Amino acid sequence: MARGLLFVISGPSGVGKNTVLNGVLEERKDMFYSISATTRPPRRNEVNGKDYYFLTKEEFEKAIENGELLEWALVYDNYYGTPRKAVEERLDKGQHVIMDLDIQGAAHIRNNMPEAILIFLLPPSREELKRRLLGRKSEAKAAVEKRLAYLEKELASIDRYDYVVVNDILENACRKVAAIITAEEARADRGYWREQFLT
Amino acid sequence: MARGLLFVISGPSGVGKNTVLNGVLEERKDMFYSISATTRPPRRNEVNGKDYYFLTKEEFEKAIENGELLEWALVYDNYYGTPRKAVEERLDKGQHVIMDLDIQGAAHIRNNMPEAILIFLLPPSREELKRRLLGRKSEAKAAVEKRLAYLEKELASIDRYDYVVVNDILENACRKVAAIITAEEARADRGYWREQFLT
Repeated sequence: MARGLLFVISGPSGVGKNTVLNGVLEERKDMFYSISATTRPPRRNEVNGKDYYFLTKEEFEKAIENGELLEWALVYDNYYGTPRKAVEERLDKGQHVIMDLDIQGAAHIRNNMPEAILIFLLPPSREELKRRLLGRKSEAKAAVEKRLAYLEKELASIDRYDYVVVNDILENACRKVAAIITAEEARADRGYWREQFLT
Repeated sequence: MARGLLFVISGPSGVGKNTVLNGVLEERKDMFYSISATTRPPRRNEVNGKDYYFLTKEEFEKAIENGELLEWALVYDNYYGTPRKAVEERLDKGQHVIMDLDIQGAAHIRNNMPEAILIFLLPPSREELKRRLLGRKSEAKAAVEKRLAYLEKELASIDRYDYVVVNDILENACRKVAAIITAEEARADRGYWREQFLT
């Protein structure tokens, strides 16, 4: 059986990544969403094992040592990483996996798994991203500026991505990400057609 | 403005290529269907300028001489080819073009326009193709055998294609071809996102 496909989705905070992801996963219930591990404290409403695996610093560093992470990074004193086992198991079984990573994590995945398919979710404009960030009650003004500055870094690394989807209207963005998944399944070199074409 | 994308769709007689094409064009009214030219006599119900441009042998050979064809071939004493001008004009205007070519024509297009996107439409099985061909009243038994033999040639050249879509259920096949078009538009290197992301 052909191996599952690995999709990585990145995009600035405030672009609506979670909403797009949920929409896509609603449509593609056959896919596995890979939950990241982190040592940062959970925010209100965040659930362990759903939003993140919340680990202690010691647990995380042991996971690094044991090679249990597909990629990891230290961001402002907090570790973030992707548990390897669940992802590899699903891919081996032929299931597609999707994960939500920042540009650094996506670059690591690209290095370790060159067959990964990288999708960048972009806001319609800088202005619109600012509006969306300011609309979030949780976001302090200073944090908004920091996120906008980071967008420039993200734009500079967009060439590493296979696809860019502009999240203008939510349904459009979901439809486009779902179309990318469908098209990648139909790529001749993925070989899925061999399983569908019965001699 | 970014140039339009060129899609080539191939597949054995009886696979349902025209039905899939019509379904896709119904959904993507912004696309241009490139009509082939031929010197073979029109069949019943075929309309000049809709199904084909029906040319005389002299007209066709003059078009070849004048470089007016993007690709052409002589098949069993009949010429088939793709008029260049309409296709180039649409692509230059940023419009996508789709054309229906056999494996030979698709290979010529791949040579002349490496950026073309090649899609092969496959029946679910050899048996099912045979059933569909025998279901056509117009098809003689001997012709069916010839078409099935040709399928083997087509299968041997499938590696030249970017995508393979198995036409099991019509709606699925239409949805998949439409998804391929959407995904290709979202490919980072096509640059369409630059037109959608306003600074």
